[in-house]
Amino acid sequence: MNISPRGIGGPTSILALTMGEPAGVGGELTLKAWHRRKELPLPFVALDNAERLIQLAGKLGIPTPIKRVRSPMQAVEVFHSSLPVLDIPLAEPCVAGQLTSANAVSVINSIDLAVSHALAGRVSGVVTIPINKHALYESGFSYPGHTEYLAKLSGSDVEPVMMLACDGLRTVPVTTHLSLRNVLDALTADLIISQTRITTDALAQDFGLRAPRIAIAGLNPHAGEDGTMGDEEKLVIEPAITKLKEMGLNVAGPYPPDTLFSAALRPSYDAAICMYHDQALIPIKTLDFSGGVNITLGLPFVRTSPDHGTALDIAGKGIADETSLINASRVAAEIAHHRNAPHQAATG
Amino acid sequence: MNISPRGIGGPTSILALTMGEPAGVGGELTLKAWHRRKELPLPFVALDNAERLIQLAGKLGIPTPIKRVRSPMQAVEVFHSSLPVLDIPLAEPCVAGQLTSANAVSVINSIDLAVSHALAGRVSGVVTIPINKHALYESGFSYPGHTEYLAKLSGSDVEPVMMLACDGLRTVPVTTHLSLRNVLDALTADLIISQTRITTDALAQDFGLRAPRIAIAGLNPHAGEDGTMGDEEKLVIEPAITKLKEMGLNVAGPYPPDTLFSAALRPSYDAAICMYHDQALIPIKTLDFSGGVNITLGLPFVRTSPDHGTALDIAGKGIADETSLINASRVAAEIAHHRNAPHQAATG
Repeated sequence: MNISPRGIGGPTSILALTMGEPAGVGGELTLKAWHRRKELPLPFVALDNAERLIQLAGKLGIPTPIKRVRSPMQAVEVFHSSLPVLDIPLAEPCVAGQLTSANAVSVINSIDLAVSHALAGRVSGVVTIPINKHALYESGFSYPGHTEYLAKLSGSDVEPVMMLACDGLRTVPVTTHLSLRNVLDALTADLIISQTRITTDALAQDFGLRAPRIAIAGLNPHAGEDGTMGDEEKLVIEPAITKLKEMGLNVAGPYPPDTLFSAALRPSYDAAICMYHDQALIPIKTLDFSGGVNITLGLPFVRTSPDHGTALDIAGKGIADETSLINASRVAAEIAHHRNAPHQAATG
Repeated sequence: MNISPRGIGGPTSILALTMGEPAGVGGELTLKAWHRRKELPLPFVALDNAERLIQLAGKLGIPTPIKRVRSPMQAVEVFHSSLPVLDIPLAEPCVAGQLTSANAVSVINSIDLAVSHALAGRVSGVVTIPINKHALYESGFSYPGHTEYLAKLSGSDVEPVMMLACDGLRTVPVTTHLSLRNVLDALTADLIISQTRITTDALAQDFGLRAPRIAIAGLNPHAGEDGTMGDEEKLVIEPAITKLKEMGLNVAGPYPPDTLFSAALRPSYDAAICMYHDQALIPIKTLDFSGGVNITLGLPFVRTSPDHGTALDIAGKGIADETSLINASRVAAEIAHHRNAPHQAATG
């Protein structure tokens, strides 16, 4: 990948890392990721509290030169020698593992700032550190999660699509944080069609795939086995596939969900459209627990995230694994690269 | 593993392989498995049509000396030099890939014969080759699958439990061939309790694990996240876990389904109790598409099966992969060994 410091007319070539839940492992991951900066295709700037990162670095024994910067542009210049921080004040000191809503405003400020830099082209993408929704709810945050909040910040007509990726597999759950019972009501042909279209567009725009191959999973065991184990395949999924084919998309299915993610079938598609959260998440986390990446498609800016939670139980212990954050940063850089160089789109 | 030709008072040390759907890949797998007989801890006898195996061996270019035998005991003696067959007549010659119900009676005869040999102690276990239910339905077979039919042959009070196994992972779906919608109604605390008890007993009796560690999955994303994404965890699964603990079983959960099958968590349990078919099957087939084994727990005889279907689309082409049948035979031998030598039970 060949990324210039600043693409012609494109955003500054740096990623914004949000703070995430300050009682979780986020700060530790940020420190560890900076120490692996030579493995990253783009620098990053942490939208975090500088003082807490300094203290954390001391406590964990990860000596890190931390530098407060005023802009992403300035962060690019210092990144090779210091971890650049756009300082976000905290309401009170945070304690590893101890959730409090006192700092909720700071957590949200970090996200807001990252998005405004991204929308203004001052950063080339946003990598979000995991948040704890419950800590935010108490202070009035009312979104089901990160993704929905980012969509709201992006404008009213945005339909965000969640993609999970690990080496050799991309999955898209068309329904996300719903009970299985609610999935059955929420699953419509229109939803499958719109999510598949956004996915196809993103695979072309963000990953440089000219004619993305989409595999669509069934909902029921054996994809319903001709209607003997559920009729959603016939009533909802097959009509969606028919329409998508009419639109010229390269889609196939519905596939029996149990074999779709096997080593034999994974190379046959660029993304699998899944009917529910765990259908998409189980194969990713079974294959690659610590390296999976969460990507939000359909936003006007690049956004990725590690594919794990705040990990309050191991916060402050120095044992958190930064692999997923590293991979999230790499994928964000890859997408930013493709968005700035659409003429370099490749097949397959 | 040290298995004597005939355990003291135990069954003859040989496995019965059923015919399965004769238009599928079963015969090819049987031939290939015999050629890998040095990798098998126990010999086997094919309950199949000798003439069709002879023709298949010729057609596929797998030269195989085939010998009709009169008993499993005789099969033990010839196995090293010939593939022993307890001959089952066919109503009409079968054509690879072409389903017909004409031979349904032969398919069922093979299963019946295997079970009667097993119940009488003339074989130490049954390895079933996949059948096609639809071909059998037309001739009056009325069971949802192999497993239910085997349970019926075993007596009315048998509750069969399906276990899937691959290297490093065993899963048990407490509901099997039901639509997701029907799973929601079928899932009860009693069902989870009975299936977990049978699983625990089997892990002790059949796998020699003294205090089997059981992980119980949630149903919904994030195991319901405190009831915000579904209440089955609180209403059904947690009460089942409480009762199982009161019974002295080593159970824990409900675990978020997406992380439960990760490399980090797999070593922490001996079996995962899953709420529905694909929750149990996706991780197994994602990890090991060709090597998974299906084991029926709770039967009065040993039964395993390859973890795939009849594969009509590749039948007669010589490209079927016998790995799952080899593994199914190994696991059947392992279970037979533990059932005959319970004093050798080891800790997990």
